[in-house]
Amino acid sequence: MSNDSTNQGLSHFDASGQAHMVDVANKNDSHRSAIAAGKIRMKPETLSIIQQGTAKKGDVLGIARIAAIMAAKRTSDLIPLCHPLALTRVTVDFSIEEATATISCQAQVETIGKTGVEMEALTAVQVGLLTIYDMCKATDRGMVMTDIRVLEKHGGKSGDWVSLIDG
Amino acid sequence: MSNDSTNQGLSHFDASGQAHMVDVANKNDSHRSAIAAGKIRMKPETLSIIQQGTAKKGDVLGIARIAAIMAAKRTSDLIPLCHPLALTRVTVDFSIEEATATISCQAQVETIGKTGVEMEALTAVQVGLLTIYDMCKATDRGMVMTDIRVLEKHGGKSGDWVSLIDG
Amino acid sequence: MSNDSTNQGLSHFDASGQAHMVDVANKNDSHRSAIAAGKIRMKPETLSIIQQGTAKKGDVLGIARIAAIMAAKRTSDLIPLCHPLALTRVTVDFSIEEATATISCQAQVETIGKTGVEMEALTAVQVGLLTIYDMCKATDRGMVMTDIRVLEKHGGKSGDWVSLIDG
Amino acid sequence: MSNDSTNQGLSHFDASGQAHMVDVANKNDSHRSAIAAGKIRMKPETLSIIQQGTAKKGDVLGIARIAAIMAAKRTSDLIPLCHPLALTRVTVDFSIEEATATISCQAQVETIGKTGVEMEALTAVQVGLLTIYDMCKATDRGMVMTDIRVLEKHGGKSGDWVSLIDG
Amino acid sequence: MSNDSTNQGLSHFDASGQAHMVDVANKNDSHRSAIAAGKIRMKPETLSIIQQGTAKKGDVLGIARIAAIMAAKRTSDLIPLCHPLALTRVTVDFSIEEATATISCQAQVETIGKTGVEMEALTAVQVGLLTIYDMCKATDRGMVMTDIRVLEKHGGKSGDWVSLIDG
Amino acid sequence: MSNDSTNQGLSHFDASGQAHMVDVANKNDSHRSAIAAGKIRMKPETLSIIQQGTAKKGDVLGIARIAAIMAAKRTSDLIPLCHPLALTRVTVDFSIEEATATISCQAQVETIGKTGVEMEALTAVQVGLLTIYDMCKATDRGMVMTDIRVLEKHGGKSGDWVSLIDG
Repeated sequence: MSNDSTNQGLSHFDASGQAHMVDVANKNDSHRSAIAAGKIRMKPETLSIIQQGTAKKGDVLGIARIAAIMAAKRTSDLIPLCHPLALTRVTVDFSIEEATATISCQAQVETIGKTGVEMEALTAVQVGLLTIYDMCKATDRGMVMTDIRVLEKHGGKSGDWVSLIDG
Repeated sequence: MSNDSTNQGLSHFDASGQAHMVDVANKNDSHRSAIAAGKIRMKPETLSIIQQGTAKKGDVLGIARIAAIMAAKRTSDLIPLCHPLALTRVTVDFSIEEATATISCQAQVETIGKTGVEMEALTAVQVGLLTIYDMCKATDRGMVMTDIRVLEKHGGKSGDWVSLIDG
Repeated sequence: MSNDSTNQGLSHFDASGQAHMVDVANKNDSHRSAIAAGKIRMKPETLSIIQQGTAKKGDVLGIARIAAIMAAKRTSDLIPLCHPLALTRVTVDFSIEEATATISCQAQVETIGKTGVEMEALTAVQVGLLTIYDMCKATDRGMVMTDIRVLEKHGGKSGDWVSLIDG
Repeated sequence: MSNDSTNQGLSHFDASGQAHMVDVANKNDSHRSAIAAGKIRMKPETLSIIQQGTAKKGDVLGIARIAAIMAAKRTSDLIPLCHPLALTRVTVDFSIEEATATISCQAQVETIGKTGVEMEALTAVQVGLLTIYDMCKATDRGMVMTDIRVLEKHGGKSGDWVSLIDG
Repeated sequence: MSNDSTNQGLSHFDASGQAHMVDVANKNDSHRSAIAAGKIRMKPETLSIIQQGTAKKGDVLGIARIAAIMAAKRTSDLIPLCHPLALTRVTVDFSIEEATATISCQAQVETIGKTGVEMEALTAVQVGLLTIYDMCKATDRGMVMTDIRVLEKHGGKSGDWVSLIDG
Repeated sequence: MSNDSTNQGLSHFDASGQAHMVDVANKNDSHRSAIAAGKIRMKPETLSIIQQGTAKKGDVLGIARIAAIMAAKRTSDLIPLCHPLALTRVTVDFSIEEATATISCQAQVETIGKTGVEMEALTAVQVGLLTIYDMCKATDRGMVMTDIRVLEKHGGKSGDWVSLIDG
């Protein structure tokens, strides 16, 4: 009986319920990728300030992108049972929806390795959104981060997975 | 004319639009606190697994709490323009709403210092939720993290602020 | 003549006595594992408090386990001449001996790599024991950590090694 | 009734048994110091190699001292519920006892702050000993680290504490 | 006789020549600042690429500034005997001299603390220049970083110091 | 048309000018090495103090070497768009030129991986020189770090590159 079934699907715990960093030595090195996304909602005037800044000065999204990329590399330091991985690619994109005063962040992370990179993509998104919050909080404390999730993952034994929720 | 007005309220940029870590030397050391919150939505069966684990073994929320507390201490490493702060208190609580198959995370952070601790509270919430995602992702890749925001902050020159959104 | 013999067996120094991170490029990637162990001795009442906590609340050993696992991943940051390694597995177990009011910690670490993982296993044990000390120090400052050592290692050119001391 | 009594002396847990980083905002900033110590036992020939190195080249203890000092600064990153502290002094000394082929490490740490520095002193000792192990492990895998404990602490509300065990 | 005179002016070593993190507990908290500067010389065409990027896309200097600010906060992690400090301000400016195809980086760091911030300012400059190198190295491996030094420092017992070399 | 040509040779930016950590998944793992160098100029009396220390106590260069080696391992944490790499070798050497009161630092870094190690070698040199500055700054604030550059690199698709400047 597999670990998963003895412990109801939570592979991060062994049969006696203790947490461990699971054994991946026998997994193949394969090309793995994941895309995660999330949003931050704000007041229209806050979005307007960010948009003006991006054009010429006060580049909020440029800084948030750097913070997000750096955070992806720190994932295994932050998430207790995550395996360290040598990432081969990290990209972070922002898009603006004026109608809802929302900025979306999407991160794509890839590696050649033994475990997937969903956590790295999610961490990039979270820290990208947090950095936007940090830089705008003096004018808008009520911003809300939302809809943070994995959109798709590829590679590894579990193969492809694509979210059914509309991205 | 203040920095804020020359740069439209984004204090993290100087008058020429360049990012900086703003000068807080003249701010008083005061007792500051912030509470942030957020949620993760999952399949009912995933929630059920977590609930069984918490009771006896496979303590997902206990581990997420530790990750959240440790992340609060790493905030200034992750967020580019955040000041380092010697935190005096970090608490993290989880609550479960079965009807919606949702776990809420709430973090309270305090310091005696020159800047507020909203970012530390938000970082704790984000990493707490990410850790839940990590430990349950083998059974439920579609979990969504949502409604991550500051609920209230106290102390410092800007004084008290409480979110108008229902917590 | 090998490096080892010119410098009396301390491979971390070159022929002129200067420290370096030794060249492992020509070593094969192989499956390597190490088990380390150690103990913390305390007052019987302290052990009793921990035992009550583990059962229902105040889970000292659960937190120490997480700290130990995370520390294993930080080893090359802490130990100056350690090579960074992508760990494939970390497990940490505690056992209680009531007669001597002692908790034993045992860590097993594995990787597919060019150098062994003894240091990662030892670091996990040390930080696991330190975390127990931290959480109980308010009631028992005189706790002593002892018998911290490698029990066995496998893989690599030097092959298997098992401690002759009784574990 | 105090936190301690409701939770049997484990101040790192709240009344419901959940871990937290305890509130120290109301503690006074005071001058605090702690001394910790520990030993590593080895084969006489290993000790002999270290002794020759210290004199002229291959300075094992010099490197271990630097690792120990740097580790003291990382303590709150490693120990989950430790408060971050701005250390004002760290010293690390080694002494050699040839009769037992043992090296002792003693670390003294000081701060002006709201919590004690026992954990920082212990972490320095642990990493100092681990670094010795790392540099000598190619010739002596059976080294044992032992008797790691706090010798004394001063400052803060709990005042002076001195270990009754002979240092 | 002071520490300095017993050890020829190297305060980072004690009377027996061992490194330590020096005791600053008795120093006053005062407002301290330091300015450091340095340059990177490149091919004129490399400078031209950077200049075009800054205007509209490919913002090399914006990214280097963020890396520099973040590095200032990591100084005590990198420099073994540096005290950790809660920085109150970090600014980083770049200026371009086309005639010599050189970019200058200047960092100003401030704190209210017990030790000076020269190391933090120098670290910011070093990492700012390194980041420029990293982003342009595919087209110009021969870039040279040079003239990295402290321009001035203020505060603390040693008071003001200004470099006699032309900035 | 390649990424490089669409964005004028700055591979760290995509076609729209946004920074990313470039995709290296399709690069081969190969043996890569880089040598970087740099200097610190000081007052003759400062150099004299360092020279006396190296012989017997106050080992400035020994400590700078350790800091440099440890910094090489932290490169991808410091430089935003650097890929994490498992280094297989790091050596750091210092040489003294009395005539000009200058210490040169040279670092050699190697890996088996998908990207080069120039940044790791440069980071080691920078932090090595910074550590010398830190330990001697009490007697000589005017020290200048200079001529920091890559001397040669080998491996990977771009093959060998050797600086034309005299090392």
